[in-house]
Amino acid sequence: MSLHTPTSSTTQRTQVGIIGSGPSGLLLAQLLHWQGIDAIIIEQRSRDYVEARIRAGVLESGTVELLREARVDQRMNQEGLPHDGFELSLNGERHRIDLKGLTGKSVMVYGQTEVTRDLINARLELGASIVFEADDVAVHDFDSDTPRITYRKDGQQYEVLCDFIAGCDGFHGVCRKSVPQQALTTYERVYPFGWLGILSHVPPVSHELIYANHDRGFALASMRSHTLSRYYIQAPLDDLDNWSDEQIWDELEIRLGVKAGETLQRGPLVEKSIAPLRSFVAEPMRFGRLFLAGDAAHIVPPTGAKGLNLAASDVRYLYRALTEFYKDRSSIGIDHYSANCLRRVWKAERFSWWMSSLLHKFPQHDAFDRRIQQAELDLVFSSESARRSLAENYVGLPFED
Amino acid sequence: MSLHTPTSSTTQRTQVGIIGSGPSGLLLAQLLHWQGIDAIIIEQRSRDYVEARIRAGVLESGTVELLREARVDQRMNQEGLPHDGFELSLNGERHRIDLKGLTGKSVMVYGQTEVTRDLINARLELGASIVFEADDVAVHDFDSDTPRITYRKDGQQYEVLCDFIAGCDGFHGVCRKSVPQQALTTYERVYPFGWLGILSHVPPVSHELIYANHDRGFALASMRSHTLSRYYIQAPLDDLDNWSDEQIWDELEIRLGVKAGETLQRGPLVEKSIAPLRSFVAEPMRFGRLFLAGDAAHIVPPTGAKGLNLAASDVRYLYRALTEFYKDRSSIGIDHYSANCLRRVWKAERFSWWMSSLLHKFPQHDAFDRRIQQAELDLVFSSESARRSLAENYVGLPFED
Repeated sequence: MSLHTPTSSTTQRTQVGIIGSGPSGLLLAQLLHWQGIDAIIIEQRSRDYVEARIRAGVLESGTVELLREARVDQRMNQEGLPHDGFELSLNGERHRIDLKGLTGKSVMVYGQTEVTRDLINARLELGASIVFEADDVAVHDFDSDTPRITYRKDGQQYEVLCDFIAGCDGFHGVCRKSVPQQALTTYERVYPFGWLGILSHVPPVSHELIYANHDRGFALASMRSHTLSRYYIQAPLDDLDNWSDEQIWDELEIRLGVKAGETLQRGPLVEKSIAPLRSFVAEPMRFGRLFLAGDAAHIVPPTGAKGLNLAASDVRYLYRALTEFYKDRSSIGIDHYSANCLRRVWKAERFSWWMSSLLHKFPQHDAFDRRIQQAELDLVFSSESARRSLAENYVGLPFED
Repeated sequence: MSLHTPTSSTTQRTQVGIIGSGPSGLLLAQLLHWQGIDAIIIEQRSRDYVEARIRAGVLESGTVELLREARVDQRMNQEGLPHDGFELSLNGERHRIDLKGLTGKSVMVYGQTEVTRDLINARLELGASIVFEADDVAVHDFDSDTPRITYRKDGQQYEVLCDFIAGCDGFHGVCRKSVPQQALTTYERVYPFGWLGILSHVPPVSHELIYANHDRGFALASMRSHTLSRYYIQAPLDDLDNWSDEQIWDELEIRLGVKAGETLQRGPLVEKSIAPLRSFVAEPMRFGRLFLAGDAAHIVPPTGAKGLNLAASDVRYLYRALTEFYKDRSSIGIDHYSANCLRRVWKAERFSWWMSSLLHKFPQHDAFDRRIQQAELDLVFSSESARRSLAENYVGLPFED
């Protein structure tokens, strides 16, 4: 018996303990709920912080389906913008990729911020809670059948006893870091530039996205709605102070290849920041009864908008595996979770790396590399098969199970 | 008036002076002949040397058609092996690319050496000559309407007056080197390894080609006939003396993923050499009345077998342009020659670079790059669109004119 006064600790019991209330954790909880599986979500940040994060905005059709399955599609159905295509631009020469015509599928423009808000509201409407602002979150004993989560909140210590832990706590989260280093293999690529992103309450320059390869660097015209535009230009990292708002708009005008009859409407910037581009994969994605999902296990550069969609893909495998476990007493899905996820992860990593390589200006590129970029774009512009393969990757490759 | 005794010089007159009797020059001469256009071929090497060179062995359907148009298809029709597919192997796991099913087209396995012999015989049968063993070949005045070629043969000096000069004299030839340096832009990529190639009079391990990506490096099982096998393994350059014949066979056995029921039959080596891999493009491909064609203007690494086929593509544009000039008095084809060729050249350069990047082990690659290679192969194995795009490039992209 310890001489110290024992700290009082409240013990909670659930089936699945979820770390992180980003879209992965929230979507997982929602899908599990409809299968009658109980979960607790523990989040280190505040609700306001989580709901304000600005992230990606293009949902694959598979992600849209999963949100429908989770019954959090009501506002998305009303406010989301189905896009049947996008444009690729090479030095201002624009070509459309007809996603719908090439694959029969569309994507949905609907911000990750909105998805997160909808998921939080849906969970709270169920009467289920999310533990926000949890401190000292830690995961324990996931190599046993009785994993535990501990955290502090408002000075009180909590312990969650659960059957499984879902690590949905992002790249910087505690879950991956709790895995013994020798059990993890990591793969990484850092890109020597960033994306300077702006958000402005102006109508978008075009009704579809424009991905632009320009001699001056990459640019992307995206949007969150008919009145909220999201634009990016490739820029050196830590270069934010060197860009006035006008310079950013000027640069967009040049790189995007704005056509006669189009207007790149300028407005005050709601947000302005530079984000790095990174490829990262940690293998495997399961350690006993701990599962990693989404950014906790892998990061993609934003080109091609795979980050959120890959998280949804992991969640799809995970909630099915857990459902099989509880309903059919089968651990097949659990045993295959990591391999199933990683096969899609690596294809999406390849696609994101390829889109990034194709569209950006790399300091280490020589004239030969530049011509190879142009030849690849020329192939895409002239070959239906090349366009179809690109489109299939963009709307999301089929699930093979 | 010079104080020196003037050198006696024989003057010849032709419409098209062709430098080089490799497949480009020979095929061009033959195609021009059937259009009633006169040509002279001047070659620095001997006939024996030219006919003995061992080169590529896979003809695109467009190249086969062009040989038919040139009426030099008789022996190819009898001895060539139409291939409807090939295999891709990743660490011994083999997948077939069904060229015929994916594109409706096949390729023809028929050695460049045989094509060259057929073309030389065809030309001699026409009663037309080829000047072999010409010394001091030089091209002059191609920026005027009266270009000239000079050479020496058996101590005699010759001058050829012509309307056009076709530089079909390969990467090391005189034609590209005669262009003022400031008029040329060149692009180059050197790969940090070579192909150790062997030729042996044994039946091939499989009836189709096998391109293998293996942790130990690239390998290729090719053939010239049912009884003559051509094999390659990726190896360091200048490493030939370190490889015994048995080591080469052993390495092929491992890298190719030889299956139960297959036999990699070993035999004495007829040829054994290491060739470097290089990507190279010189732009433009026309300078006044001098046209570069084939290796004189561009080199591809052998992965994907585009070298000879790209030369044939140039020749197709060139003989059509010259035919238009003489028959229709139109210089449109001539004016577009360089741009038309280069659009295909760059696509083939991209494809050859991509196939090389996909299948070889690069010293500078890290674990992420290796996984990207594997993910790309996994995509090809699992996606019909990806396979179709690969197959379309392999059998030869359509001509756009």
